[in-house]
Amino acid sequence: MPGTVVVDEAAEPTALRWVRYDAHAFVEHQDETHAVDELPLDDDGGVVWIDASGLANTQLLEDLASRAGIHPLVLEDIVHTGQRAKTDEYDEGRFLVCRMLRPDSEGIDTEQLGIWLGGHSVITFQERVGDVFEPVRGRIRTGRGRIRRYGPDYLVYALLDACVDAYFPVLETYGEALEDLEEQVLERVHQSQVVEILRMKRELTQLRRSCWPMREMVQSLIRSDDGSFEESTKVYLRDVHDHVVQVLDMIEGYREIVASLLDLYLSTLSHGMNETMRVLTVISTVFIPMMFLTGLYGMNFDTKQPGNMPELEMPYAYVGFLVVLGIIALLMLLWFRRLGWLGGKRDLP
Amino acid sequence: MPGTVVVDEAAEPTALRWVRYDAHAFVEHQDETHAVDELPLDDDGGVVWIDASGLANTQLLEDLASRAGIHPLVLEDIVHTGQRAKTDEYDEGRFLVCRMLRPDSEGIDTEQLGIWLGGHSVITFQERVGDVFEPVRGRIRTGRGRIRRYGPDYLVYALLDACVDAYFPVLETYGEALEDLEEQVLERVHQSQVVEILRMKRELTQLRRSCWPMREMVQSLIRSDDGSFEESTKVYLRDVHDHVVQVLDMIEGYREIVASLLDLYLSTLSHGMNETMRVLTVISTVFIPMMFLTGLYGMNFDTKQPGNMPELEMPYAYVGFLVVLGIIALLMLLWFRRLGWLGGKRDLP
Amino acid sequence: MPGTVVVDEAAEPTALRWVRYDAHAFVEHQDETHAVDELPLDDDGGVVWIDASGLANTQLLEDLASRAGIHPLVLEDIVHTGQRAKTDEYDEGRFLVCRMLRPDSEGIDTEQLGIWLGGHSVITFQERVGDVFEPVRGRIRTGRGRIRRYGPDYLVYALLDACVDAYFPVLETYGEALEDLEEQVLERVHQSQVVEILRMKRELTQLRRSCWPMREMVQSLIRSDDGSFEESTKVYLRDVHDHVVQVLDMIEGYREIVASLLDLYLSTLSHGMNETMRVLTVISTVFIPMMFLTGLYGMNFDTKQPGNMPELEMPYAYVGFLVVLGIIALLMLLWFRRLGWLGGKRDLP
Amino acid sequence: MPGTVVVDEAAEPTALRWVRYDAHAFVEHQDETHAVDELPLDDDGGVVWIDASGLANTQLLEDLASRAGIHPLVLEDIVHTGQRAKTDEYDEGRFLVCRMLRPDSEGIDTEQLGIWLGGHSVITFQERVGDVFEPVRGRIRTGRGRIRRYGPDYLVYALLDACVDAYFPVLETYGEALEDLEEQVLERVHQSQVVEILRMKRELTQLRRSCWPMREMVQSLIRSDDGSFEESTKVYLRDVHDHVVQVLDMIEGYREIVASLLDLYLSTLSHGMNETMRVLTVISTVFIPMMFLTGLYGMNFDTKQPGNMPELEMPYAYVGFLVVLGIIALLMLLWFRRLGWLGGKRDLP
Amino acid sequence: MPGTVVVDEAAEPTALRWVRYDAHAFVEHQDETHAVDELPLDDDGGVVWIDASGLANTQLLEDLASRAGIHPLVLEDIVHTGQRAKTDEYDEGRFLVCRMLRPDSEGIDTEQLGIWLGGHSVITFQERVGDVFEPVRGRIRTGRGRIRRYGPDYLVYALLDACVDAYFPVLETYGEALEDLEEQVLERVHQSQVVEILRMKRELTQLRRSCWPMREMVQSLIRSDDGSFEESTKVYLRDVHDHVVQVLDMIEGYREIVASLLDLYLSTLSHGMNETMRVLTVISTVFIPMMFLTGLYGMNFDTKQPGNMPELEMPYAYVGFLVVLGIIALLMLLWFRRLGWLGGKRDLP
Repeated sequence: MPGTVVVDEAAEPTALRWVRYDAHAFVEHQDETHAVDELPLDDDGGVVWIDASGLANTQLLEDLASRAGIHPLVLEDIVHTGQRAKTDEYDEGRFLVCRMLRPDSEGIDTEQLGIWLGGHSVITFQERVGDVFEPVRGRIRTGRGRIRRYGPDYLVYALLDACVDAYFPVLETYGEALEDLEEQVLERVHQSQVVEILRMKRELTQLRRSCWPMREMVQSLIRSDDGSFEESTKVYLRDVHDHVVQVLDMIEGYREIVASLLDLYLSTLSHGMNETMRVLTVISTVFIPMMFLTGLYGMNFDTKQPGNMPELEMPYAYVGFLVVLGIIALLMLLWFRRLGWLGGKRDLP
Repeated sequence: MPGTVVVDEAAEPTALRWVRYDAHAFVEHQDETHAVDELPLDDDGGVVWIDASGLANTQLLEDLASRAGIHPLVLEDIVHTGQRAKTDEYDEGRFLVCRMLRPDSEGIDTEQLGIWLGGHSVITFQERVGDVFEPVRGRIRTGRGRIRRYGPDYLVYALLDACVDAYFPVLETYGEALEDLEEQVLERVHQSQVVEILRMKRELTQLRRSCWPMREMVQSLIRSDDGSFEESTKVYLRDVHDHVVQVLDMIEGYREIVASLLDLYLSTLSHGMNETMRVLTVISTVFIPMMFLTGLYGMNFDTKQPGNMPELEMPYAYVGFLVVLGIIALLMLLWFRRLGWLGGKRDLP
Repeated sequence: MPGTVVVDEAAEPTALRWVRYDAHAFVEHQDETHAVDELPLDDDGGVVWIDASGLANTQLLEDLASRAGIHPLVLEDIVHTGQRAKTDEYDEGRFLVCRMLRPDSEGIDTEQLGIWLGGHSVITFQERVGDVFEPVRGRIRTGRGRIRRYGPDYLVYALLDACVDAYFPVLETYGEALEDLEEQVLERVHQSQVVEILRMKRELTQLRRSCWPMREMVQSLIRSDDGSFEESTKVYLRDVHDHVVQVLDMIEGYREIVASLLDLYLSTLSHGMNETMRVLTVISTVFIPMMFLTGLYGMNFDTKQPGNMPELEMPYAYVGFLVVLGIIALLMLLWFRRLGWLGGKRDLP
Repeated sequence: MPGTVVVDEAAEPTALRWVRYDAHAFVEHQDETHAVDELPLDDDGGVVWIDASGLANTQLLEDLASRAGIHPLVLEDIVHTGQRAKTDEYDEGRFLVCRMLRPDSEGIDTEQLGIWLGGHSVITFQERVGDVFEPVRGRIRTGRGRIRRYGPDYLVYALLDACVDAYFPVLETYGEALEDLEEQVLERVHQSQVVEILRMKRELTQLRRSCWPMREMVQSLIRSDDGSFEESTKVYLRDVHDHVVQVLDMIEGYREIVASLLDLYLSTLSHGMNETMRVLTVISTVFIPMMFLTGLYGMNFDTKQPGNMPELEMPYAYVGFLVVLGIIALLMLLWFRRLGWLGGKRDLP
Repeated sequence: MPGTVVVDEAAEPTALRWVRYDAHAFVEHQDETHAVDELPLDDDGGVVWIDASGLANTQLLEDLASRAGIHPLVLEDIVHTGQRAKTDEYDEGRFLVCRMLRPDSEGIDTEQLGIWLGGHSVITFQERVGDVFEPVRGRIRTGRGRIRRYGPDYLVYALLDACVDAYFPVLETYGEALEDLEEQVLERVHQSQVVEILRMKRELTQLRRSCWPMREMVQSLIRSDDGSFEESTKVYLRDVHDHVVQVLDMIEGYREIVASLLDLYLSTLSHGMNETMRVLTVISTVFIPMMFLTGLYGMNFDTKQPGNMPELEMPYAYVGFLVVLGIIALLMLLWFRRLGWLGGKRDLP
């Protein structure tokens, strides 16, 4: 049934916290609360930011949505946490979804962040406790910057900005991991490297798929004309848009690097095989003619019959034979040298 | 001849069932009926949903089409079941085609679902008995949710939503199959895996081709301005659109995984060949020089002549020879160890 | 010189045939005629379809064009038979080009079909005698369907529809050929298969290039507002458009299959090489150590000297030696079995 | 400095020639002239075509530009001969750049053709003497066709048409070269073929890059509404546009063929390696067991001790041994035959 | 916090220089200045160009921004030097970012150039001292060309033009490096070449990513209607646009070449392996049968027993044996010759 709120089993318990501020005053409720009735949702000129983390307590979320006038489909989107970034316009307000990098996780792991902007209140819905918004909270507390003087749309901007900027350090770490992997491949190919390369390729593809709709989302915020964002704030949104595009550029660049790592891996593998083949060929080709000759003089033709291996009876024939073997080996090695096959480590990995 | 209805030989016999409901009343005809005249098609303020499954009885379908005012070309599209998802606007109503996953089949198998929305009636045409609409029927019967209070356009929305949501569990099963296949490839390459990989690639491509036009179809429903969908329903269609995009995203992600599985398969094959080559090269290279030496002392030069292999006559020469062989073997092995070729299972699959 | 009509040397001689019909009457001139003056081109309320096949007789074509008011550039396009599908609007009428599959040829071979729609007459220009229009002629003769009651635009629609529908059986044959080829590749790779795969890839690419502009052409007919097509006919053109898109979808699907066939071919080739390598390696590795040992005891160290191969003098030493060889071979085979190299036909093609 | 005219060192000396014509009269100045003042640039109702070939004499070009009212940036574009095809609108007239195939050069070599259309005069700037315009000149001289009766825009059309049509014979030669190369690859792979394939790929890519903007250029001429092209001429430009698209289609088709040639080359290389491996494996595998047995009976165990190789002493043991060897060789060959490795030339290239 | 200016540690110290000119007068302050108050920012009819190089002194930059009325977000973009080329419109003026090639660096290294166009002043922000603007400064000093007679928008054009034109010589050097690399690959493959190829591929991709947004940026300047660029200047911007497109075309062409270099590299590697395999196969196949025969006659069957190797006792048997060996070797070599495997260097690299 559309609009139904089904709890994901892995969902964390829901906790509400809120801040109310204007240019002059500031109230923060840092403890968890479940009392939806006490939330300062009435418009008194200040901005209210309610932060709900954890999506398990659906009753609480429904109460909150009902008090804040949130459309049932919005609540469904909030609870089904696989949404792409998007923004939907409703009569009661504007809903945004974006993907937030989890700050504490290893690698690239995103959670869904829902932002409801209705009247003078901003309500954020996070999948888990722990977010990338501490700098925003700090600016609200201390009153630095423009945030306390501007409206709720500026707060939404600040949250989006924090969301997007959190991608940069993670991507830089990623770039370093790619460089390490390239060095390892050049030093010595290993099956585990191809697994790693393909894993990174998928992660980057997935990340691109997360970020691409964020670009469209910010663009439609900039183009929106329903009054939820003021023109002065849209100048700042343009900045967020530039950052999203930069993130996408970096991802695209890393995807190219991963693709060329795969090429490097495969060509190094071929090189290695080439070298193995050459070792085998050099050894075989040098020794096989000599072995043939030793086999020849190991035959048991009766030397008493005429014409049957008289050289076996000659004095110093053995010494002469060894000299012949040496000359054969030398000629073979000279030939391989001319073919350039004796480079060994020098020109083959 | 255009507009001609030709029966596909594999078509199932046609069965009609219908439901009529409004906010207060509800009548369901669960048994099959062939009496087109008795269908409650006249507008009496309620919504009528006629469900036709099986397309073999063309006469029945033509009677139904004629009574419901369906254009001949629509009937042709219904019977030719290879249509892409689309929506066409006619004077008498609106026709939609979408691809419905067959709930009982293995793997990915879709059938064509035609939906005719004309006046207060919705007529669905399915290829086979058995569909994904039980939840919708349940909501109509019990009167839960909005469905009984809303018009036929909401019913169409509910059917589309059920259609799209049925893709998610199938795709999740698909994702698990891909993970299994990856593990198998890493453990041991097998020709049957490449066949499986290529089969999955095609299936996903085909699935993408089914779903892509569904996105356009829902978009044109949202943009349509012929009054067949009310604005309040279009908000819900936006939700269906998001789900179709999510399905397409998942398919795209799996396609990337399948592509990287092929890369993994091929590189594992190369690795295996590399290892085979190394075994051959190590064994040959260690033994060939030693075989040469044994061949050397197997020669029949007459030791009574001066200079001819005096070492054969020396005491303990054999023991010394064995020591020399051991040293040669050891040097070769040390060389291969330095080249890193003796890793065996450790660094090669 | 633009507008010049140059005869292609391979062009067939031109033959004119015509049909004139309205809802009540029907006249067909089945024999070839060269009398342009006698063609019933004057508007008398009926529809006239003149069918010119073969493009060698340029004088005849020029006379026809001149009488029917066809622009010189149109005639140039008709005679230069490599045109892409397109539609051009002129003051005197509308010109369409589409690619028609030759019904009698093997494989995929298209010829150019030019259609001139001016006033109440439709003039078709085919490269060769023989077309896919017999069903249309049949409907005109028997008066079945709408064709006799509708205008010349409906005739153009019927011709386009016949043109497009002729692609489906050919494509289905193609699909079967692809399945055969896949089975052959899996059974046994052969150089001729890669030639066949690449040939099919090119044919499909060429076919896609033929069909893609047909889609645009039909779209611009649907969007045209010069009155050459009535709204009621445009509903039918939408159907042609859907069919062209289906043809393109099938072609795209086959292109994917051909691409994966090439992957299958190359991986099967690699597998085969892997197997060859393993046979060589297993045989070499099992026998080389044993050959070394036989070479060892074939040496001629003087056993009368102390320490020189006393084992040669021991009783039953030969039997012990054979046992040692057997153990070595067994160990080698056990090792290869653990490596999984002895699967033979079972897991390698 | 923008607008500066710098002479390319390889530029040819500039030569001016001109033609003046209207429907009744025709004056041609076939000799080179450097007298800019005498050029019939004043509007007297006729069309003037001034053809400047060679770009070395910048003073002359500047004088000409100044008299004809050509913008300095246009002159800069004319002299810097790496421009893409484009059209720019100026107050004084319209400037076109297109790439003209050099008629006398081998392979694909283009030069820049600049066309200035201002008032009643057309000025063409070619890099070198020698062009593809002789047919146009012929038509002007003899008064055949429409060219003498139409304005300067028709002349521009005729020049563009000649430019584009010159691509077709060159591309056909190219297609034949590709077919030859394919046959060579199938007959015998050679390193020089891959160099040739990659060279052709680049040439085609470059050619596509030359032609692609020509399409846009002609399109913007057709869409232009500054009056430089009359509607009756635009009908002819549509024809040029169709030809450019055909050229692009041919190039695209050849690019596909080149790509599949590379696939063919690589798979043929793999096949050849496979065959080499099989020859080695068959020879080694047949002889190695037999060599082991000869080595076995070459050992020097003392046959006087019991159990030590009594078979050496048996009569006709040698004959029996040879029979055993024959059986071993036969079994090996039968096995290889079952594996299908003895096909030799028949199924491997 | 948005709008915050954080110093990058590697930033160079900031230095200001300025020029003021009009058609008649010209003042240049060539020494570094830190006195923001003394900058001639007041509008007196002339054009002022302030050039700030180095971004370390944020206080100075903030003072400058404050005096010139630059938006805080612009300053943030200036200091964060990873921006893509773009142009933003503000109430106070227009901000441009483009990527400037560093003239002194090896290879392809870009720095960010920020240009602020407000009223009659142009302020440029460079990452480092040293730029590509000397020709522009020269024209201002000498008064050559139009620059002194035109407004600040023409100066911005001149700077952009210098920026873009600086790409051409660097790209030409790049093209030569690619040709060198191709020759090296053809002469002798080396692992370092693939590293070089992949490095170049990435550099070109990165360069394309730098240049692509420059195209859009110039396009939006041409389309802008806020009056910051006059129509007469936009004609020149069209020229810059053409140059950017040419740069992109060259990059695209080099990317194709790099891709085909990788193909060449890999196919040359395969060729080399093929040759190695052939050498091994030829040597083994020629000698192995001969070694088998020598082994055969090295066996110790008791020739006194009947039927046991009577040929060992025959006179001149050894000579006959040698002849047989010679014939075998000859036949083998003839076979290989027919297979075309003895080409050696001639047809394999």
